[in-house]
Amino acid sequence: MIIVMKPGASQQAVDHLLQRIEAKGLKPLHMPGAERVVLGALGDERLLAELALDADPNVESVKPILAPYKLVSRELHPHDTIVRIGDASFGGGRFGLIAGPCAVENEEQLRASALAAKAAGARVLRAGAFKPRSSPYAFQGLGADGLVLLERIGREVGLPVVTEVIESGDVELVARHSDALQVGARNMQNFALLKALGRAGKPVVLKRGMSAKVEDLLLAAEYVLAAGNDQLILCERGIRTFETATRNTLDLAAVPLLKAKSHLPVIVDPSHGTGIRDLVTPMALAAAAAGADGLMVEVHIDPPSALSDGPQSLYPDQLAALGKQLEAVLGALGRSL
Amino acid sequence: MIIVMKPGASQQAVDHLLQRIEAKGLKPLHMPGAERVVLGALGDERLLAELALDADPNVESVKPILAPYKLVSRELHPHDTIVRIGDASFGGGRFGLIAGPCAVENEEQLRASALAAKAAGARVLRAGAFKPRSSPYAFQGLGADGLVLLERIGREVGLPVVTEVIESGDVELVARHSDALQVGARNMQNFALLKALGRAGKPVVLKRGMSAKVEDLLLAAEYVLAAGNDQLILCERGIRTFETATRNTLDLAAVPLLKAKSHLPVIVDPSHGTGIRDLVTPMALAAAAAGADGLMVEVHIDPPSALSDGPQSLYPDQLAALGKQLEAVLGALGRSL
Amino acid sequence: MIIVMKPGASQQAVDHLLQRIEAKGLKPLHMPGAERVVLGALGDERLLAELALDADPNVESVKPILAPYKLVSRELHPHDTIVRIGDASFGGGRFGLIAGPCAVENEEQLRASALAAKAAGARVLRAGAFKPRSSPYAFQGLGADGLVLLERIGREVGLPVVTEVIESGDVELVARHSDALQVGARNMQNFALLKALGRAGKPVVLKRGMSAKVEDLLLAAEYVLAAGNDQLILCERGIRTFETATRNTLDLAAVPLLKAKSHLPVIVDPSHGTGIRDLVTPMALAAAAAGADGLMVEVHIDPPSALSDGPQSLYPDQLAALGKQLEAVLGALGRSL
Amino acid sequence: MIIVMKPGASQQAVDHLLQRIEAKGLKPLHMPGAERVVLGALGDERLLAELALDADPNVESVKPILAPYKLVSRELHPHDTIVRIGDASFGGGRFGLIAGPCAVENEEQLRASALAAKAAGARVLRAGAFKPRSSPYAFQGLGADGLVLLERIGREVGLPVVTEVIESGDVELVARHSDALQVGARNMQNFALLKALGRAGKPVVLKRGMSAKVEDLLLAAEYVLAAGNDQLILCERGIRTFETATRNTLDLAAVPLLKAKSHLPVIVDPSHGTGIRDLVTPMALAAAAAGADGLMVEVHIDPPSALSDGPQSLYPDQLAALGKQLEAVLGALGRSL
Repeated sequence: MIIVMKPGASQQAVDHLLQRIEAKGLKPLHMPGAERVVLGALGDERLLAELALDADPNVESVKPILAPYKLVSRELHPHDTIVRIGDASFGGGRFGLIAGPCAVENEEQLRASALAAKAAGARVLRAGAFKPRSSPYAFQGLGADGLVLLERIGREVGLPVVTEVIESGDVELVARHSDALQVGARNMQNFALLKALGRAGKPVVLKRGMSAKVEDLLLAAEYVLAAGNDQLILCERGIRTFETATRNTLDLAAVPLLKAKSHLPVIVDPSHGTGIRDLVTPMALAAAAAGADGLMVEVHIDPPSALSDGPQSLYPDQLAALGKQLEAVLGALGRSL
Repeated sequence: MIIVMKPGASQQAVDHLLQRIEAKGLKPLHMPGAERVVLGALGDERLLAELALDADPNVESVKPILAPYKLVSRELHPHDTIVRIGDASFGGGRFGLIAGPCAVENEEQLRASALAAKAAGARVLRAGAFKPRSSPYAFQGLGADGLVLLERIGREVGLPVVTEVIESGDVELVARHSDALQVGARNMQNFALLKALGRAGKPVVLKRGMSAKVEDLLLAAEYVLAAGNDQLILCERGIRTFETATRNTLDLAAVPLLKAKSHLPVIVDPSHGTGIRDLVTPMALAAAAAGADGLMVEVHIDPPSALSDGPQSLYPDQLAALGKQLEAVLGALGRSL
Repeated sequence: MIIVMKPGASQQAVDHLLQRIEAKGLKPLHMPGAERVVLGALGDERLLAELALDADPNVESVKPILAPYKLVSRELHPHDTIVRIGDASFGGGRFGLIAGPCAVENEEQLRASALAAKAAGARVLRAGAFKPRSSPYAFQGLGADGLVLLERIGREVGLPVVTEVIESGDVELVARHSDALQVGARNMQNFALLKALGRAGKPVVLKRGMSAKVEDLLLAAEYVLAAGNDQLILCERGIRTFETATRNTLDLAAVPLLKAKSHLPVIVDPSHGTGIRDLVTPMALAAAAAGADGLMVEVHIDPPSALSDGPQSLYPDQLAALGKQLEAVLGALGRSL
Repeated sequence: MIIVMKPGASQQAVDHLLQRIEAKGLKPLHMPGAERVVLGALGDERLLAELALDADPNVESVKPILAPYKLVSRELHPHDTIVRIGDASFGGGRFGLIAGPCAVENEEQLRASALAAKAAGARVLRAGAFKPRSSPYAFQGLGADGLVLLERIGREVGLPVVTEVIESGDVELVARHSDALQVGARNMQNFALLKALGRAGKPVVLKRGMSAKVEDLLLAAEYVLAAGNDQLILCERGIRTFETATRNTLDLAAVPLLKAKSHLPVIVDPSHGTGIRDLVTPMALAAAAAGADGLMVEVHIDPPSALSDGPQSLYPDQLAALGKQLEAVLGALGRSL
């Protein structure tokens, strides 16, 4: 950690900080420059977080050297983690397609959409039973009934299922009915939920928050791993920017960046990432070309009648066409669907 | 609601949509133009949300006319709502100062900081017992013990207290020990929490999310009011932008905007809004001049030793000076502290 | 155009606006609703821009129906425009690779980098002679001498050249020495420059501004086409967001979106789009998979010694490897390099 | 400057960098840590910018210690610079009000608006003759004729004038007719224009770009000062964020931040900063309370007929009321209008 002192900081203030650094067991460094005094603290600087050196009125800025996360970091764990949901594998070169409707609406809709997903090459079925919605007047999901239905249809069509959990109190219930648990963008920093998922014993799909930096996403994942669960898939799903032509701005560069920094698999959700049906296929292909370990795509048997996210849901034939193109692009890069 | 059809939409597609609008009990309108067919739907267009007309492949865009919130809107409730926390009032011309340390750390720190807050003119004491932190390795708060301590010190110094609740399961516990409950920025769209707060019987301070539009904040408040609690204070605390010189970008224009759209009181948190001690006072004064109904400011008896948010905590004498300047600015605009 | 009146707008105010709409030769529409009066204006609503109806104190909002650009729109010009720079073609299915160093530094550096670009499959050589830099103390380019050198080396290695022009007064000079002219992100709304380029008689590469919406980029292109030049290539190069891990956030969804809205070719600059060498190749492949018509990539014979943009410049062997992978990905999608 | 090496960097790579630092005349530092080697470079690190150390494949990141600007910095120039436009003063405790219509439209409109500005307490008249507009179909200003008219009306009503210049080629012309020259947000990084203004001999009002960080604004100002002109006023006018309820997000915290970092005066434009008439007055008062040295406000004799920016233009009586409130707020803080 590098500590830049304010121009007028006294020698006494400098000495006081050097002592605090040493008292934490780190090696202090003193670097007096022409315009500024700079201090260093060598060692596990995460220990210094509690010192909050930047709260000192003599300190201008504090620059960390090490990443603030450990368990998710590739440095200490150089090999790819492979996460399995049922028979599907993510990471370590494996590419998995997750598809399904935004929400569980009813038996017929779910079965037809699930069959379409499977026919297109999907290995995992997605559908939401608990739907966090910006407006209290929008469809909020079928809740526990939806979970039961999703589990039944998943078994019927032969696909493992992943569904969202929105509260720590629901983790046990959701884990009973699904093969993997998804954390939505709005809950990426719901730390009580993350801790509960660390003890859930099921794989987790963690979506990036709308205003989360890559580092924030990795720190959120660190909560889950620190609580005991390393079966975690990171999911890029778009961030909020000034651009209004798309629902979110899909940050595909986060894919190779996350994979460089972490050993965890990284998938992409081009449906929420764009919010526009016609952009889903090109961005799905782009994600594959960028090195993603999988995709999560919304498909609906009849998008115009969907209770949520219809505008971004593919028609079944569009998903089938995407499946074929994915195979070609992955094949060109020495991988397979 | 205005529905813009795609250029090549057929007459049949248009008729189909007009029928769907009519079936919902709204008055359909047909406006054929030179380059586009435009449809209208007059009436309570919120009913159309479930139709998800923008999911139709013949529809280019859907433009709402009415705001998607109702209960928080000033249109149906033109007079200011006044929210009381203990003796302090917010809204309807009243201005309230909430101050205290970021977190409950220990008895001595809390008492000294609380006395400093009171001496500076604060009417409500703030301090966190449950601290949501980006990193699992950062101080997470004292939890239930902190609540008890906060309640005791509040009574001792004679100030009502407000503290953060981070899970719906904790609402009852926190409500038992505090006079008002705060929802942090990360939880603004934790809808289970919002619903629980609607039934808590205590005033709520709802902070704007880091990536929340003004409309998102109002919809989040709508959840609380729809669940039965209209004692809600909106709090602007900065949004996330490309600017890195400050912790967040404090969006003060949201103050008069929120007050125009809603009858609820609006306060400002310049501590999180800037993240920099020296900017807190000017932005607090600016908030008062912009018409805010109050402030929430962090003060600490010894900021360099604070376990969290030290860099943005005022020293006691700075808060006292701010109190005097606030009186002057409010007085100049015909108001009082 | 749809005009939403404020709740209390009088009949007189409504009538006055209807008259203004009619006086402009558009067909006015009156749609009284339960909570709001809504007006419509059918016809070429661009005529209404000068009425500035949203400046009327009785008007709540104005919602346009038609895009504000015409000449760049695919609606009136459904077929892809193909832009040629020397022998290279962009658009209409053709994919072109533009590569070269950020800046012309000296003869040796430029020749070696140009040969590396050509060997990797590049069809156009890029290099800047005029360098707009945030700091006045950074290298500003070789200016006119650099132009002459670039032209000479381009001929020597057999590649057409593209280079940036930063002022309308320089257009003629730059056009004399280069095969295409590039507008940098900072100048996307330098309208005097855009108008001059409309009369330059050479193809233009127009980079998206750091805070430009897709619509802003299309309006900037409209300036060039309106001034008489339709040989224009749009270039996505990243936008400024809260994410600091990359230099910019590359908005690849803009590629299929721009191609849906406009007939102009769209290329991607993954070098500025990420600012990080290791992310350039994955994002270049992603751009190709997303449907881009080409790429602009920085390559340098010795990046650590580059006078600008070294951190994002590929080594020659990295560009060669990218060329091979591009061929594979394009081939998988039925296209070719 | 602090240079963080990649985990696997060899001793040889480290030595090579230390030599390069020393060769530039700076003092190199070697700090081997448990997980990373960190290097330091003490001295005027701006010299190192040309080394581009972050382009080295062995370097993970480079962290500057010193600000990249010099002449605008308060460190070397601790006292406030006072800039005078005619009789009006900005900085050093002086507060100046600049007001006028967005654009020069015609004699009658300009005279009436100018008289309204003066009556409300404005000390400088603003109006644009060259209007940069996003769309080529929008009103582009009266050009040179507008300049002449503005100069004449300014003299007639007894106010100095400020107007925008959009090209380096126009600087001489505009300087001949106006008392100060304004750089618009879109041109903040038009470096040729900034250099020309450095030689113009007239005060400059430099508006912050829509995606410019505070540091970018200071670097742009540095161009003008480095070219010989220190009569420069910085102007905060809103940045582009995800919030769409306002035209821009007015970043008022930039005011005290800029004043802490620089000796130059800082004013605020609440008209462009919000884009909404009803928000202009509260944000103008907030700016004054935040410590701004002045305001630039749009006023129009008849906003609904304005050729540009009508929605954000105050009516004359609104500006008069603002003038009175400004006096009160400034007075409360020991200042005056």
